[in-house]
Amino acid sequence: MRTKKEGNQTVVFENSPHIIATNAIAGSKESEGPLGGQFDETVSDDLWGEASWEKAESKFMQQTVLSALKKSNLHPADIDYIFAGDLLNQCASTNYGIRVFSIPFIGLYGACSTMGLSMKMAAMAIDGGFADSCVAVTSSHFCSAERQFRFPLEYGGQRPPSAQWTVTGSACVILDKDRGDLKVECATTGKIVDRGITDANNMGAAMAPAAIDCLCAHFADTGRKPSDYDAIFTGDLGKIGKSIVVDQMGENGYDMSENYTDCGVLIFDESQDVHSGASGCACSGLVLCSHIIPKLQSGEFKKVLFVPTGALMSTTAVQQGESIPSIAHAISIMS
Amino acid sequence: MRTKKEGNQTVVFENSPHIIATNAIAGSKESEGPLGGQFDETVSDDLWGEASWEKAESKFMQQTVLSALKKSNLHPADIDYIFAGDLLNQCASTNYGIRVFSIPFIGLYGACSTMGLSMKMAAMAIDGGFADSCVAVTSSHFCSAERQFRFPLEYGGQRPPSAQWTVTGSACVILDKDRGDLKVECATTGKIVDRGITDANNMGAAMAPAAIDCLCAHFADTGRKPSDYDAIFTGDLGKIGKSIVVDQMGENGYDMSENYTDCGVLIFDESQDVHSGASGCACSGLVLCSHIIPKLQSGEFKKVLFVPTGALMSTTAVQQGESIPSIAHAISIMS
Repeated sequence: MRTKKEGNQTVVFENSPHIIATNAIAGSKESEGPLGGQFDETVSDDLWGEASWEKAESKFMQQTVLSALKKSNLHPADIDYIFAGDLLNQCASTNYGIRVFSIPFIGLYGACSTMGLSMKMAAMAIDGGFADSCVAVTSSHFCSAERQFRFPLEYGGQRPPSAQWTVTGSACVILDKDRGDLKVECATTGKIVDRGITDANNMGAAMAPAAIDCLCAHFADTGRKPSDYDAIFTGDLGKIGKSIVVDQMGENGYDMSENYTDCGVLIFDESQDVHSGASGCACSGLVLCSHIIPKLQSGEFKKVLFVPTGALMSTTAVQQGESIPSIAHAISIMS
Repeated sequence: MRTKKEGNQTVVFENSPHIIATNAIAGSKESEGPLGGQFDETVSDDLWGEASWEKAESKFMQQTVLSALKKSNLHPADIDYIFAGDLLNQCASTNYGIRVFSIPFIGLYGACSTMGLSMKMAAMAIDGGFADSCVAVTSSHFCSAERQFRFPLEYGGQRPPSAQWTVTGSACVILDKDRGDLKVECATTGKIVDRGITDANNMGAAMAPAAIDCLCAHFADTGRKPSDYDAIFTGDLGKIGKSIVVDQMGENGYDMSENYTDCGVLIFDESQDVHSGASGCACSGLVLCSHIIPKLQSGEFKKVLFVPTGALMSTTAVQQGESIPSIAHAISIMS
């Protein structure tokens, strides 16, 4: 048992697990954005023929996993573990979406950091010798998230400029011990960071400190600097959170002005009236599968740092006067 | 990288991670039950001086981790990962309870199976070469769970005979690469099982099929039989779920009548008016730390199979007519 630890929060995989297939299915508003043409599938009816938004979100996840399995020529019985989670209470869209597959299941809660958390845990399972093939998947849905975390949609509340728009969709990555061109090379696990933000409509400000903490840990642990990557993506900080990251990373001695952007600013454009940008578990997931990974496959990128962020927000806790704890997880993906 | 897989759902650890310390803190009703004298600490005020039940539950978790760290002579900075989750929406008692520790955090959602899920993931992290020391912790609280999943306490609704009583408390296990007398020898990861139960007051019937599925997988994968263990504990099925397990495992050719019981029948006695028994993440956690592990340490048990069960119940989904998916995770612990 040779230790794979590097520094305090990072592990470098001994036999980097491979990415064998990805799939991304997005909703209608997402299909009209800048990445609209790059999703594997888009669905014009956000209910997708289901009786509720929650059931629709489960269908997004189920169909995304099915399509990813098909692309990888794997069946559910070939998968050792499915690592999954979402934003709904009790991760309901996950539990109902994947129950049909009968795959050993590791339930995760990382809010919007789940794409990174699930891929990291899948990579650890494979590199640790516990699995050959794993599914990492997450989902979010504007309508189910809005009514759970904020207001009934029918209320039509005005959204402040700092608000972000929860992405409707699901993204899935299948990792494999041997097959696949891209590799998950290392991962930095975040700590819970809480800088006292209490505004459920300012997730970027709540999550940016967690992204900064994770990025600084990653660079300190590995001795790397931002320019060692072709591109760095946080997600889903939006415009406000992204500018906080650039400013404060600069103060910490890391120049993020050249090759850094945030998944939350890529999905929608200004005309779509989403204010500070996109959020939700599917935000970084869709950008990963439809934008980042294709550029790694085409050779435009050789090495990318992917840092999804999650606001661990509980409406009960916020109503009790609590601030919003956040987390980020970084994974390095290379061709 | 030698595979540690055994059968379809089981891994056998190459260098079994050790249990270095445990801690269990229980509430007032639990302190009056059969295990009352065995908890490390009991708290007579279920609010524990806090302003809400949710804040009290976070305090249970925080204090439990602090005491376990103290017993193990470890500081938060010595811990590579904390694996944790609970029943509250967004795992709020976890996020607020552990944010002070600044330990790299893997958020889990396994409902009442979380004690097993977190220990298994911690063991995989250590045996995989990613960590030296990990914390696995969970909590539940009767009052916070009741108002989230069922009715306001003030409503005073009548509980049917199949109902179980959510345990108030928190349990923590610290795993270490080298130190500690007991070992986590192998683990079987459960699949989501849903047999159509829709009654939120009959968790035992909802979860028993998941326990049976996981137990059968464990025995099939390892070639073992129930009598290979000194004792087998499911949790938290209660009286109804336990009788289903004994019956249906018998039909599957496994005699569970000799050395099997359920954590949900051990915490309260008949006079405490809890109907079918105890439930909640802390149920199996408290029994593990206060009953099972001491008997392993004393030599009364040499090898135990611990199989916490979780009902992945969402009130939103149940209100939409859905049934209750469930899961169980098995780990083998030996001296």
